[in-house]
Amino acid sequence: MPGPLDGVVVVDLTRVLAGPFCTMMMADMGAEVIKIERPDGGDDSRTFGPFLKDESAYFMSINRGKKSVTLDLKHPKGKALLVSMVKKADVLVENFKPGVMKRLGLDYEALRLHNPRLIYAASTGFGQTGPYSARPAYDLVIQGMGGVMSITGPDAHTPTKVGSSVADIFAGVFTCIGILGALNSRHHTGHGQMVDVGMLDCMVAILENAVARFATTGKSPGPIGNRHPSIAPFCTVVTQDGMITLACGNDELWRRFCKLTGLAALIEDPRFVTNAQRVAHWEALEPLINEAMRAHTSAHWLATLQQADVPCGPINDIAALMLDPHVLARQMLVELHHPTAGALMVPGTPLKFSATPASVHQRAPLLGEHTQEVLKRWLGVGDVEIKALAADKAI
Amino acid sequence: MPGPLDGVVVVDLTRVLAGPFCTMMMADMGAEVIKIERPDGGDDSRTFGPFLKDESAYFMSINRGKKSVTLDLKHPKGKALLVSMVKKADVLVENFKPGVMKRLGLDYEALRLHNPRLIYAASTGFGQTGPYSARPAYDLVIQGMGGVMSITGPDAHTPTKVGSSVADIFAGVFTCIGILGALNSRHHTGHGQMVDVGMLDCMVAILENAVARFATTGKSPGPIGNRHPSIAPFCTVVTQDGMITLACGNDELWRRFCKLTGLAALIEDPRFVTNAQRVAHWEALEPLINEAMRAHTSAHWLATLQQADVPCGPINDIAALMLDPHVLARQMLVELHHPTAGALMVPGTPLKFSATPASVHQRAPLLGEHTQEVLKRWLGVGDVEIKALAADKAI
Repeated sequence: MPGPLDGVVVVDLTRVLAGPFCTMMMADMGAEVIKIERPDGGDDSRTFGPFLKDESAYFMSINRGKKSVTLDLKHPKGKALLVSMVKKADVLVENFKPGVMKRLGLDYEALRLHNPRLIYAASTGFGQTGPYSARPAYDLVIQGMGGVMSITGPDAHTPTKVGSSVADIFAGVFTCIGILGALNSRHHTGHGQMVDVGMLDCMVAILENAVARFATTGKSPGPIGNRHPSIAPFCTVVTQDGMITLACGNDELWRRFCKLTGLAALIEDPRFVTNAQRVAHWEALEPLINEAMRAHTSAHWLATLQQADVPCGPINDIAALMLDPHVLARQMLVELHHPTAGALMVPGTPLKFSATPASVHQRAPLLGEHTQEVLKRWLGVGDVEIKALAADKAI
Repeated sequence: MPGPLDGVVVVDLTRVLAGPFCTMMMADMGAEVIKIERPDGGDDSRTFGPFLKDESAYFMSINRGKKSVTLDLKHPKGKALLVSMVKKADVLVENFKPGVMKRLGLDYEALRLHNPRLIYAASTGFGQTGPYSARPAYDLVIQGMGGVMSITGPDAHTPTKVGSSVADIFAGVFTCIGILGALNSRHHTGHGQMVDVGMLDCMVAILENAVARFATTGKSPGPIGNRHPSIAPFCTVVTQDGMITLACGNDELWRRFCKLTGLAALIEDPRFVTNAQRVAHWEALEPLINEAMRAHTSAHWLATLQQADVPCGPINDIAALMLDPHVLARQMLVELHHPTAGALMVPGTPLKFSATPASVHQRAPLLGEHTQEVLKRWLGVGDVEIKALAADKAI
């Protein structure tokens, strides 16, 4: 069944994470994604662990459903082939440092002359403009600069990186939104355009409450662990054998929680009657809750509280998450079969369309697996010429 | 200048964060977003702190650029008005618990009969299907279930919530991608469809490396603080007056770092020559690096290392981020003027389009500010009828 981006052709020059995450979502939605890789080794992330029989599981999970074509963009013939592809493409995505594509003669201003309908998206650390635009960027550096570390952590002295590379991933996701917005615009105007997304900008965009707090008080919020700043109890609690989350969003849920946990005496305690009072007296309340919760296991409390619709949940490690019946029912884990690595589980797509389903279509490509196919089918390059290009190291 | 979603009309039933974040991005891209609110108080987040002269800064930041229309969806006349709007809309977005819209007679199956071109997006905690679909969801609960807390934190015993509500925000961002994908599809098919996005699914989708590690080793990775699992030094380091990030992604950067920090003797140390060796001997290496870094301030080290292109950066708190010249140059902070609250800084849009710019168009609406305008202009409702609707409490 066709996906929502059926017929959209993407020339994908991206490497590692932010850009590949963007084009992965597009491939899941049915776009034809032609991943262009350096002939000598390809995408750097092919060398990143963990490995499954010498193939990078990291690379394989983010590049499923794409085709791989090797091209040396510094070689005049490689460059000419790229231009030929761009003429037939809807979208080009790259995540080089600003200036690299211009030095190659392949920047938007050059390529739009060959295809005015082209949507050219650049996903970078700092964007194409501004004082830091030439700096190298890594997810860790951007998380540090972008404020999210300053509000994450168990206490005010321990700024903490988010465990997944959210600076990269948000940049990939926002780049996808930019491309799809530009595609919608092109349906009306007939023209392509450039989309410029910087990781640091994306981090500013997702700070949420923290910016509102600073804007109104002039003070920077710090990390406050797993608590909510203005609701209580809305936190993690320690049980006999672990930790669970607990989210009593209103006074009625609080009273229900107290009755179920042997804390009924607290319902009438004047320190804890309203949410505002519980927030104000949190230091007194927290040990009382934790003491009660330590009487039983996480499983006991989750069953008891969920039956009464008190919002709570486990703190799943990755293994528990991967076995969760809901995750499986939502097809959020998909097994791919790779010719050399064998079977690999990858996350499914969270985009569930009723009429044009997105899905994980195929495993990730071997380096250059589709070079011949794309050059022949798309560009009409003959066998002899392909051999010459290979001998020239242009492909 | 028109934005990329110019002419797209969105009927927005969403409340609080995930849904409103989605429609905020659409409004920034030029869509006309009609926010439907309960007549008695509207979106719950209007009561969430922090406040600026009695107006919620939280609400104002996420609902900029939208129109507000009050409608009681339980009132037959309110329901009829919603159906009239849906007939003229491109997109409807809601984030009620599954089943609520059906009970109101306003689910996708009902509404598509009135407008087969309608794109109906539902953003929920667990999605429309699967064993947990009826459960209430909060960002904290989903972060706990979704695995991100199990890989975030200073050490293996301290699972840590991400400081911003990334479960909500990723759901909003993926919902936006789903809507834009469906819009693209509609240009070809002429038909709308339903888009179903669950927060938990989104968390699975963004775990990145952690899923690949589990899939290949069968072991769940835990939190490892601010370190990279397979690159060193790639971490936070303590200076004389604070902490900075440091990302020596290869051996050449490592040697350059050593020369600049008085650690030149380590270059020849057999424990630290290659990245793999530095990772293996990290317990010995980390104190040596921190001792050297404590000799000077963060500002000193950032200047010294950046001049030599060693990737590093400050750990900005929100105040430092808001004053950063790059953030300002990228227009990532925008001042809005509200008739009662006054001036408020909000994050700008990270979507930079060359031809159809996205931007923060206008402040957030007062409750029901556009009820009359929309009812009159769109639906041709007369003044007398509007008075009757108000007396009936349908609007």
